[in-house]
Amino acid sequence: MQQAVRVAVFGFGGLGKGMARLIPHRPDFKLVAVADSQGYAFDANGLDLDDNFALVQPIHSDSDSIISLLKAHAGEIDAVFMALPNLPVEFFAETVKRIADETNFEGVFVDALKRTEAVERLFALNEQLQERKILYITGAGATPGFLTTVAAIAAHSFVEVLDVNIHFGVGIANWEAYKATVREDFIHLEGFDAKRVACMSDEEISEELEVRNGLLKLVDMEHADDIILELAGVCPRDRVRVGGLVDTRNAKKPVNTTVTVTGRTVSGAVGSHQFVVSDEATMVDNVCGPALGFMLRGTELYERGFYGLITSADIMPRFSSRVFSGGEVSRMQEAALSV
Amino acid sequence: MQQAVRVAVFGFGGLGKGMARLIPHRPDFKLVAVADSQGYAFDANGLDLDDNFALVQPIHSDSDSIISLLKAHAGEIDAVFMALPNLPVEFFAETVKRIADETNFEGVFVDALKRTEAVERLFALNEQLQERKILYITGAGATPGFLTTVAAIAAHSFVEVLDVNIHFGVGIANWEAYKATVREDFIHLEGFDAKRVACMSDEEISEELEVRNGLLKLVDMEHADDIILELAGVCPRDRVRVGGLVDTRNAKKPVNTTVTVTGRTVSGAVGSHQFVVSDEATMVDNVCGPALGFMLRGTELYERGFYGLITSADIMPRFSSRVFSGGEVSRMQEAALSV
Repeated sequence: MQQAVRVAVFGFGGLGKGMARLIPHRPDFKLVAVADSQGYAFDANGLDLDDNFALVQPIHSDSDSIISLLKAHAGEIDAVFMALPNLPVEFFAETVKRIADETNFEGVFVDALKRTEAVERLFALNEQLQERKILYITGAGATPGFLTTVAAIAAHSFVEVLDVNIHFGVGIANWEAYKATVREDFIHLEGFDAKRVACMSDEEISEELEVRNGLLKLVDMEHADDIILELAGVCPRDRVRVGGLVDTRNAKKPVNTTVTVTGRTVSGAVGSHQFVVSDEATMVDNVCGPALGFMLRGTELYERGFYGLITSADIMPRFSSRVFSGGEVSRMQEAALSV
Repeated sequence: MQQAVRVAVFGFGGLGKGMARLIPHRPDFKLVAVADSQGYAFDANGLDLDDNFALVQPIHSDSDSIISLLKAHAGEIDAVFMALPNLPVEFFAETVKRIADETNFEGVFVDALKRTEAVERLFALNEQLQERKILYITGAGATPGFLTTVAAIAAHSFVEVLDVNIHFGVGIANWEAYKATVREDFIHLEGFDAKRVACMSDEEISEELEVRNGLLKLVDMEHADDIILELAGVCPRDRVRVGGLVDTRNAKKPVNTTVTVTGRTVSGAVGSHQFVVSDEATMVDNVCGPALGFMLRGTELYERGFYGLITSADIMPRFSSRVFSGGEVSRMQEAALSV
């Protein structure tokens, strides 16, 4: 990577701000734009953030900020992080279609979406994305994303995968800092759906949290890990289960986050690999870091002419383009030279 | 994947036979050739194996079997698995160079090599491999391979990776079934090296095992996980530690196999992710399954024009090209159409 990847972040809630906080630690990237429902900010030299990761730059007020940003600055943005966890399932596909139809943006997208249907809708755009030279990597956050890809690797010890169980613990000291994420979780509770949650005021959310002592127990969530593992040939989607426990009043996770992959080996034995996520790594750490890894690898593939719609389980995230020791090194980019 | 990948296995000891046993469970592959120090066997329709996974086909006796096989059948082989764990570090690079110089083989290699120096020597061949339309994926077994790539993903929650500790337990009911693997392990014991082990008779190996009650405690092994994670930008190689305990008299693993990735998050917290490998998955399961996954993905990339030398941490293994449910699907191959 010769130059830093110029990143735009769509959505500037908890996840978007987390990404803004992370990018200065990752020299492969430069944050040049953010857009949310209020408007957008752009600076080709990199956005300035204050100590609380709030924008210093003025925001161009705009009710259609994503499209307006890309109409104005498409050529100055290499990659987009869609940090929009709580939106109707149509939103991602509709927004991406509008970007393809109405702007000249060419580059890489990664998203941190959650729901299976949102991924399914994106797949319908594959051909248009190919024609428009856009590489869209879906399910590139924590789950789906980080944990899904660990499961996709773990599958390989087995000849048949019987069960993939992703069970997360999330601790949030103050739910108001991650409103969109908590609202998205509400959609998966008994008796709630996206429309109902969208109509709830923050006070109503608070009251529901009060009833539950701040704990949200999520079972059999519609999570796109299922379709991503199915597309990767790992197992039928109904063998993938996602659930968890969210504590909206304590930063400490109420339970370990785990991924358990159970399968049958060639000798007929049934066993399970288990990945246990560090309690010290927050939800935002586990979303934003992997998203940058998929973005960096996606940029390599983009330069090789990969366009269209792929999932996180199609590519290996790349941590850094830095080479620690000297010596001759072949990276995927260099292996590309003969093309 | 329209047609099965036609696979040749070089080395027909424990790992090679394990691969021959696995391939019938993986419909993306067909085993068409094996080669070892005795000679080679080839059948374009697939090799026949008896119930003990011994070859039914006659072996062409040949002291230079790999080169002879590829001179005779290069155009009928898509991919090669190098199941040769216990050979001098020069062997892989020298053999691959001879294949590039002396045969017309074009396709994909995956190896299950272990030592860092063996990988370093391969990198010198990158340009020649590119010119010769060969994609070589090194470190594509269990460790390096499976466990290295899990670590490469796990790194992403952190802004700095402080330590990667791969600690394996291996249980082998009868060491004589995996002579090459056990001999490779001996190289990593105090007071032994490759030359000394190569000169030891099986009886001498047995005697050394007797002294140790069949247990081999391996510490600070020279394992290519270090260079692979360094090349992936995860951390300097001296932060990667590989060790383990091998019981050569019991199929049951003496300890769990684990990968522990310790890092510092953006907020300054230090934590560890840990991956625990199922005791039911044998060393051969953990080598051969991932090797096929890297091979399948490598074949996709090969068709896209990726040639040269890459590592397992550059690509995501693919479990199967099977699509479980109907519906429109974009896979990497299809995303490729616009190129």
